[in-house]
Formats: sequence, C-alpha cells, structure tokens
Amino acid sequence: MSEKNPVKKQTIEVCLSPQLLEHFNCEESIVVVIDVLRATSSICVAFENGAERIIPVSSVTESMTFKQLGFLVGAERNGEMIEGFDMGNSPFSYMGDHIMGSSIALTTTNGTMAINAAKNAHRVVIGSFLNLDALCEWLKEQHENIICLCSGWRNMFNLEDTLLAGAVVERLTSEFRFSSNCDSAIAARYLYQLAKSDLYGFLSNSSHRQRLERLHIEKEVEYCLTPNQTNVVPVLHGDFIVNQIILEESK
Amino acid sequence: MSEKNPVKKQTIEVCLSPQLLEHFNCEESIVVVIDVLRATSSICVAFENGAERIIPVSSVTESMTFKQLGFLVGAERNGEMIEGFDMGNSPFSYMGDHIMGSSIALTTTNGTMAINAAKNAHRVVIGSFLNLDALCEWLKEQHENIICLCSGWRNMFNLEDTLLAGAVVERLTSEFRFSSNCDSAIAARYLYQLAKSDLYGFLSNSSHRQRLERLHIEKEVEYCLTPNQTNVVPVLHGDFIVNQIILEESK
Repeated sequence: MSEKNPVKKQTIEVCLSPQLLEHFNCEESIVVVIDVLRATSSICVAFENGAERIIPVSSVTESMTFKQLGFLVGAERNGEMIEGFDMGNSPFSYMGDHIMGSSIALTTTNGTMAINAAKNAHRVVIGSFLNLDALCEWLKEQHENIICLCSGWRNMFNLEDTLLAGAVVERLTSEFRFSSNCDSAIAARYLYQLAKSDLYGFLSNSSHRQRLERLHIEKEVEYCLTPNQTNVVPVLHGDFIVNQIILEESK
Repeated sequence: MSEKNPVKKQTIEVCLSPQLLEHFNCEESIVVVIDVLRATSSICVAFENGAERIIPVSSVTESMTFKQLGFLVGAERNGEMIEGFDMGNSPFSYMGDHIMGSSIALTTTNGTMAINAAKNAHRVVIGSFLNLDALCEWLKEQHENIICLCSGWRNMFNLEDTLLAGAVVERLTSEFRFSSNCDSAIAARYLYQLAKSDLYGFLSNSSHRQRLERLHIEKEVEYCLTPNQTNVVPVLHGDFIVNQIILEESK
C-alpha cells in the first residue's frame, strides 16, 4: 500500500520531574507545564477572572519588587500563603473583582520553578484539569511535538500532575496523527484511565494530598480536580503568561 | 486502644531515575537496584550459575584492566555486546560452566551506573523478576527502610523497571509493618497490578522493548520477565557484588 504525502506524526511525551527535562528536546516542542495542586490551577482561575498578565518569579524577594510596581502578588511556600502578600496559592483567592485587569507576580514551591525550567521551550502553555479540553483543542491546532512537564514536589514524582499528563495523552493519542512511545506517557495514560472515574478518591493516599490535608483545603483540592471549568489557554509570551485566546483575538 | 511497644513501620519508596536519587535518604536505607532489561537479570543468572563475585565498573576502559587481571568481562553499550569481551548483557551468556567460580567485571549502559549511584546507601541489593520472591523474603528479614531504584534508560523513566518496583511494593506492603505514602511507589504498584497477568504483553509498546526488538532478543526479554527462576540475593559488599546467601552461610 503506497501512501502519498503521509502525515508526519506528532509525538507526545511526559517528563515526570523538572530535573529530568534536560533529556527532552524542548527547543522544538510545546511544553505543557502542570502543577495541579495548585499553581497552574490558580493561573487558569486568574485568567478566567480577567487577569491581564502573570509573571512567574522564582523568589519571594523578587516578587516584593513587583508589589512595589503595583502588581498583585501571590506567594506560597510549602503549601501556605506568605504574610503580607495579596494571594496565596488557593485558586479561590484568584476569583473576584480585584483580579479583573490585574497584573500578578506569582511564586510557588514547584509550579513557577517548572515554568522557569521550561523557558527554553519553543512554546510554554499552562495546563490544569480546569482548562483540560480547551488546552487539548489548542494543542491539536498547533501541529507541533508536545512535552507534558509535571512539576512534582521538589523535583520528585507526584501523582496528580501525572494524572493530568495522562489525560492529555489520552485525548491527543485518540487522534491518529499523535504518537507516543515514551514510557512515561504510556504509564501516565494507564494511571489516568484507572483514576478518571474518581480522581479525588484515587488521590486520597497520595503524598501531596496528605500534605495538603493538614492545611484544611479539601474544597480547593476537589475544585482543582474538576475538569473544564474554563476555556482559557494561558501561554508564556516573553516574560509574561497571558491568555492565548485574548492574544489571538487582539491580533 | 492502647498499644505497648508499637512496631515502627518501615517505609518503602520508589525512585524512578538514578538522577533523582539525591532526594532520597539512601544512607539509612537498603537500595534495591533494578535494571530488568538486562543488567540486574544477568547478575542474578551469573550467581545462579556459580559466579563468585561481580564488580560493576563504569567504563569500558576500566573493564579492560580487569580482563588483564583474569576476570571475565561483560560489557554492553546501547543494548549490544562490545567486541573482544567475554559476555554482553544477555542473561543467557551468564549460563554455563565458564561462570562457575568466576570473577566478573560488568559494565552496562544503565545498570552498573545505577549501582554506582547507590554506593552511599546503607546497603545495596540487586533485584530482578528472576529473584523476586527471594529478594522480598530477604528484604522482610532486614527491618530497614527500602528504596527501589529504577535504572531507567539514560536517566529517563522506563516501564519494566517500574513494574518490578511495583511488584516489590505489592509484596512488602501486604505485610502490616511496611508503609508507603511515596507517590512513585503508589504509581508503580498500580502499574504492576495492571500488568502482572501478562508482563510481556503489557510491555509490548514500551520504548525499551521496541529498542530491543531491533536486536532480535525476544527470548531474552521473555526470560527476564519470568519471576522466580533463582533464589540468589546479590548484595554489594565493598566494591564487589556477592551472593548474600553464600555470604551468610560462610559466616
């Protein structure tokens, strides 16, 4: 059987820790940064509530500079909000009128570090369960190779980020033109298939859930595991994360 | 319910890449080094066939020195045997009369690198499907925390090593005194439970299997995925790997 102009398959891979990203070809790929609990979920909520731009900063000290420039500042370390800042890492604190039109500087334990680790990528996009379908539709339109980067916890593997990566792999590989023979993508998809009917229950034993339980934020966790609460597709544009949809409309 | 002298639980964790081992407390743990395809499988076969000791060496050049000292030398890079050496990485090449009483220097792409990465551990033991039950029985007798170290492929996650880690987690956590809230241990156990009825079929899409398929070694792969072909428990003792059972008998 001969085939004229066979469609070049796009690959989708999963990187289970920012520390392993050096082994992937980021320069020629879109990197989907994932920090389900809670940085990338909060970023999606902020754009859903009308934020104009978010700058990921690595240190609390650096975010103080942006506070003086009139930015709202969100800062979290080890799951807790830092005193004197406007928001922590709860997605609920990125809802409301104060977010509309705002510029936000955000630093978190794992999420913003992963965004910065991916800065050499061809493009960087923000993924969460909250924007899952919109993200996948956008990825399908790009015709580029994809790497899902799980932020993990201090460079260690975590389950919730891997499950979202598996959800993205499942959605994309259901279309013929995507292929994946990356073992971590295969594993992530299997784990998502096991978990998807009850993500919250599946994660009940996970290390991060137990860590967050001590902070009494079960409602936030449940919200972060709820797919498709928004259609925003936040992308890194220079130093800032902006909402791709608005960016495209303004062209 | 009060409990006198409650038994201190031992933890079992899984490290998915040698590059992430720095985040684990190796100094106070037994590290189980896993390279199913094929270094740790071959090591088990060598001891089953009467090898006296195996020295893991990092470079092909270093292994040449041991050849001059009268060692048998096994060397593999990228899945293939290196010319001029006695054995490659096939478990079948470690069977037969030439192995009885031998000293072997072994260098492979991933396995011996992982063994060397674990050298600071309290103890290092070699795991494969071939010695699964013997390994787990020995681990139960040690009363120490356990880290399963997956060699992976060039520091990237692979499925077959993770499945063996999951098998070890499943066997140990079935006993009350072992606990695991490490996300990678939870994931490894789930994946093993999905795969265990047909490991070979489950791995048919994995990256390493496809890589090895090109080398036409399907029979070796099938053998490496067959549990409990030997009762050896190879441990690192100084610079050498020796068979723990023989070591204990000679005390």
